Amino acid sequence: MFFVIDLMGTFVFALSGAVAAIDRKLDIFGVLVTAFVTACGGGVIRDLCIGALPPAGLINLEYLSVVALAVALAAFFQRLLLRLAQPTLFFDAVGLGFFAAFGVHKVYALVPNIELALLLGVITAVGGGIIRDVLLGRVPVVLTKEIYASAALLGALIQLLGELQVIDRHVAPWAAIALCTLIRMLSLKYQWNLPAIKKNS
Amino acid sequence: MFFVIDLMGTFVFALSGAVAAIDRKLDIFGVLVTAFVTACGGGVIRDLCIGALPPAGLINLEYLSVVALAVALAAFFQRLLLRLAQPTLFFDAVGLGFFAAFGVHKVYALVPNIELALLLGVITAVGGGIIRDVLLGRVPVVLTKEIYASAALLGALIQLLGELQVIDRHVAPWAAIALCTLIRMLSLKYQWNLPAIKKNS
Amino acid sequence: MFFVIDLMGTFVFALSGAVAAIDRKLDIFGVLVTAFVTACGGGVIRDLCIGALPPAGLINLEYLSVVALAVALAAFFQRLLLRLAQPTLFFDAVGLGFFAAFGVHKVYALVPNIELALLLGVITAVGGGIIRDVLLGRVPVVLTKEIYASAALLGALIQLLGELQVIDRHVAPWAAIALCTLIRMLSLKYQWNLPAIKKNS
Repeated sequence: MFFVIDLMGTFVFALSGAVAAIDRKLDIFGVLVTAFVTACGGGVIRDLCIGALPPAGLINLEYLSVVALAVALAAFFQRLLLRLAQPTLFFDAVGLGFFAAFGVHKVYALVPNIELALLLGVITAVGGGIIRDVLLGRVPVVLTKEIYASAALLGALIQLLGELQVIDRHVAPWAAIALCTLIRMLSLKYQWNLPAIKKNS
Repeated sequence: MFFVIDLMGTFVFALSGAVAAIDRKLDIFGVLVTAFVTACGGGVIRDLCIGALPPAGLINLEYLSVVALAVALAAFFQRLLLRLAQPTLFFDAVGLGFFAAFGVHKVYALVPNIELALLLGVITAVGGGIIRDVLLGRVPVVLTKEIYASAALLGALIQLLGELQVIDRHVAPWAAIALCTLIRMLSLKYQWNLPAIKKNS
Repeated sequence: MFFVIDLMGTFVFALSGAVAAIDRKLDIFGVLVTAFVTACGGGVIRDLCIGALPPAGLINLEYLSVVALAVALAAFFQRLLLRLAQPTLFFDAVGLGFFAAFGVHKVYALVPNIELALLLGVITAVGGGIIRDVLLGRVPVVLTKEIYASAALLGALIQLLGELQVIDRHVAPWAAIALCTLIRMLSLKYQWNLPAIKKNS
């Protein structure tokens, strides 16, 4: 079950990378690279920081296959994709929660440090999207607007409560994914944004 | 004493990240991330390269707290900050020297290789600023103008002489910080720049 | 012999970084940094991912010296460089093949995983160029056009066949370099490009 969510999250993240890269007219190789780093980049940074080498995203052929599938879909079924925009956003939210929770779990199991687990949990979830935007030459969307990283942080916090046994550790990941998804979908529906800090001129 | 300079350097670096991010209209989360990577990014790269895992910047709550404080100051006291521009530049110069010297010290203690210590000393000092500028979509200031990295390199060199016991190892860090600060402040006062390489057209 | 090709590849990669940085009016330090990361950045990422620390590019003074030489050449002999554009492209192609093959060899010797060896082989060859373009604020050329990464992938594949003893392991690196160079030079001569994925509007 966890495995299915992992691949689904990877798939949807890769899709977002592929669509953005096609938009910027990258060639096939460029689209593949962008999709791959969007899907696996956050996890690779996490693994580098805790010394879990080589990074899991680089040695499991499942990820690369799922990314290739996402690129093919983005290339050949763009019209379908447009009609699926709503489901895609939903699966992206689920993937976000999963990556945040999974990141916290993996880090805390290896290095039981609360700050590290939270920071790397969020990076697992949003790091790939940041690299995608840097590669495509734009300021990372996740840093400028929308409740996205905040939803990931909430997921990471709930999972951490599970690791600390404050809440049941079997319930924690599901609660993390559910609440992260809920917050994210509500923020999309009602167009919530984090406030920017006003600049006095 | 070293601890105080470390936190002060972190604070001033975070401030520069926060101010730049507010300028680009990032949301609160984006400002926090930018401030954090500006302050801790160089040290994280250094620690990744010498295998000092997990990176010190990610497991000590002091840094995150100091960064949060800097963001709050940047958000609520912008007018004050403008009036403090001169002191800020001074503390930034002190932080620059400290990070360069501390980077050399940490690297050389673990891997006694001169080139590595110098390269990573400079990266400790200027790496965060480079990541900040890449995230904000501009060519890193430190690569285009001003005597900044060169001042860090000077600090790194002096500290290295201390590690090699050419000069007294208790004096070295203070000499490194003092000279780096001096060069940096003089370059600001007299608007020294490194020459660009002329392009023959 | 391998050592000579390694330094030659480093030199030509550094040259491409230096020329691009001068074009963007970076100062001397910026040009040096850009040349260095272009030449050594891919290998550093590779070494971080397999835990070969500290990264080879940061502890061997040969690389830094060769980079400094390339920067000096780029600064003082720009007219000569223009006349040498053709040879430079040729040596760049040879360096590309060498870095791809060497990357695969180093990775597979340490972690015998096929996917990891291929991914990091290609990253060794094209990673530096990607960092160069991100630093200079442009979408990485290698992701947008030209048969470049594909030639590196071909070189990596051939070297991998050697590691797996499908083809003679003493022949493999030479075949990898030769074929990568051939494909790259042909693609330049006949202006082959990978197709971009069409966007239906």
